[in-house]
Amino acid sequence: MKATGLIVEYNPFHNGHYFHAQSSREKTNADILIAVMSGAFLQRGEPALLPKWERAKMAILGGVDIVIELPTLFAVQSSHNFARGSVGILNALGVKSICFGSEHGEVQDFTEHIKLEKEFQHSIDCKVKDFLQEGHSFPKAYDLALESVSTENHLQMLDIRQPNNRLGLAYIEAIQKINPLIKAETIKRKHANYHDEELEHSFIASATAIRKAILNDSREWSQYVPPSSYSEITAYVENEKPLMTWESLYPIVRSKLITTPIPVLSTIYGMEEGLESRLQHAAIHAVHFPHFMELVKTKRYTWNRIQRTLVYLLLHIDKQEANHHLSKLPTYARLLAASSNGRRYIKENKESFTLPILSTFSQGKESLLQIDQRAAYAYSLGYLSTMQVAEGAREFKQIPFIQK
Amino acid sequence: MKATGLIVEYNPFHNGHYFHAQSSREKTNADILIAVMSGAFLQRGEPALLPKWERAKMAILGGVDIVIELPTLFAVQSSHNFARGSVGILNALGVKSICFGSEHGEVQDFTEHIKLEKEFQHSIDCKVKDFLQEGHSFPKAYDLALESVSTENHLQMLDIRQPNNRLGLAYIEAIQKINPLIKAETIKRKHANYHDEELEHSFIASATAIRKAILNDSREWSQYVPPSSYSEITAYVENEKPLMTWESLYPIVRSKLITTPIPVLSTIYGMEEGLESRLQHAAIHAVHFPHFMELVKTKRYTWNRIQRTLVYLLLHIDKQEANHHLSKLPTYARLLAASSNGRRYIKENKESFTLPILSTFSQGKESLLQIDQRAAYAYSLGYLSTMQVAEGAREFKQIPFIQK
Repeated sequence: MKATGLIVEYNPFHNGHYFHAQSSREKTNADILIAVMSGAFLQRGEPALLPKWERAKMAILGGVDIVIELPTLFAVQSSHNFARGSVGILNALGVKSICFGSEHGEVQDFTEHIKLEKEFQHSIDCKVKDFLQEGHSFPKAYDLALESVSTENHLQMLDIRQPNNRLGLAYIEAIQKINPLIKAETIKRKHANYHDEELEHSFIASATAIRKAILNDSREWSQYVPPSSYSEITAYVENEKPLMTWESLYPIVRSKLITTPIPVLSTIYGMEEGLESRLQHAAIHAVHFPHFMELVKTKRYTWNRIQRTLVYLLLHIDKQEANHHLSKLPTYARLLAASSNGRRYIKENKESFTLPILSTFSQGKESLLQIDQRAAYAYSLGYLSTMQVAEGAREFKQIPFIQK
Repeated sequence: MKATGLIVEYNPFHNGHYFHAQSSREKTNADILIAVMSGAFLQRGEPALLPKWERAKMAILGGVDIVIELPTLFAVQSSHNFARGSVGILNALGVKSICFGSEHGEVQDFTEHIKLEKEFQHSIDCKVKDFLQEGHSFPKAYDLALESVSTENHLQMLDIRQPNNRLGLAYIEAIQKINPLIKAETIKRKHANYHDEELEHSFIASATAIRKAILNDSREWSQYVPPSSYSEITAYVENEKPLMTWESLYPIVRSKLITTPIPVLSTIYGMEEGLESRLQHAAIHAVHFPHFMELVKTKRYTWNRIQRTLVYLLLHIDKQEANHHLSKLPTYARLLAASSNGRRYIKENKESFTLPILSTFSQGKESLLQIDQRAAYAYSLGYLSTMQVAEGAREFKQIPFIQK
């Protein structure tokens, strides 16, 4: 059976994801689609709207064959480590292709871009330094440097301000390093842009707009998700379970920020150049998340970088722990859900996988897995107090969803 | 002006405290009564029912002249360091006597007890080891050892199972070490025992019973406190401010326990012999404080020891920080409230004090003071979210209450 890898967050699984999965299967002629999915916390440093278990189930009902959790430390990362972690796992599970969505949509232009970037690396680096000194964040400085070098030299480069183009580049770089035999493919994203906040008149909308509609409890969103996602989400909400946002978890981060000494805060991964004092100061003055972010916001740090650092603090991930794990690739592949085909693929190919498949938490002894445990506990703290113990315990008790 | 020192918690200030202050003034012929009082957290490892500011004001209205905060790290301690911190501050402020309440009531028996304890130290230590091996907590093992040695040798010793006798011994030992010229006095406690939980038919009741009545919102407690305390407490409650108990702050400690890795928890002061794992395990399973304590409870650790460790975690006090400060005496005397006489005493004697008097937070640069700051912030987290910022800011903005 031929497997293709997808790198996803499914927050939640909607028609755009369904379309991408179908197209990936056709384009790469795949028997099996393996999705590596972020768990409780996402790349942008936010809690996922729904738990990983519900999201993984929706993916299987929407046509994916296997959902593997991207370990939290690799999930809550900027594109480079996010891509390394995801590609590392997909490679270990024997995928022949990885197919990502992008605004650009032509895979050869990604490889061309990477070649040009290498060629002009020195000029780019010099410009980055200049833009950093002007007080820009690193991603912004890099954008500006790239733009300036490509204009000066009349290069045909990708628009890396488009978030999925940027991620796509990171995937291809990771593939080149980890296993160049994996074939990269891309599918042009339909209609919706990642950051679009409003629902439009079609059947595809951005996850951002769909989340907003779900949170506002408007039924308008039903047309943008497969019926299986719709049932899953409404059942979840009807059980009085929370749609998780930073607003629910911020009080915990706030209490940590204001009761932890600065020298200890500065051991947390992501706390650099006095960010710990800035965060503490804002936490002292803000009891609500939007106010906090408003106080913290600065040209120097991107919104995502700040949110990710809050996740590291929430889970008490220190620099030593993070750097230790990030110097390697993920050490396990945690199964969240599978179709019957997916299950067969695992059974038949297990011996050739270069990572152990964990279908229960107790099978893993890795310290990287302890971070996922803390993530599950932290996530459970956003539930009603009567639900917290059971929700935390799901990390150990939940059996992967297997479609018959 | 002749000053006498009192060592207090005033949680809250009641008739028994009033009686003790009056008797201390008479017995030691004092012009000035200086009380060293615990702040946000108490010796037994609990949050104080009301903030230190309200409690200090009640004390002044009840006849005390000066209230100084015992720094949090010295306040949340077993008797030895609690006494060292308190006596250290009183000595620095020039008291001639220290007058404590005790169940026993005869000061010469305390000094005699200490002499005997030194004489029989070796036999006591041996017995302590035996009792520890039987799995008792250290305080319990010490009680049993002392009882056994004093029976064997027909010694007339104090009953140190009585909590105020035990504290009294610690005060006298601290006086002997810090300044033997300070005269120790004791006054026999009237009627109520510390641990009594029920109100009885008189005008004196234990603070425990009074707290219980206040928390149950029964008006029965009014006869047990001076009218000034009654007004202060009712005004506080009418402003929708919380009477603080562990139940309000436990969710924060719980979130820290379940999201902090064991190796980090084990750096916290008080975490010894695997206590960190025991606490984490209980926190995972208990969303309410009584259930948590029930799960943690063991012969090996006293209730107070466990509660104190929770305070250390809540304020992230690590072993290094604690041991650094505890190897010395307190380095400042923070003024919470004063009578006009008290104010004059400070003004006239300031030059001879061996510690700086801080009447605002900003006058202190000590790292010991940072712990008090974290204590104030942690305490503020028990308030309604709309009040938390203002309540936390009191630490910096509140001016000591001065009685005209």
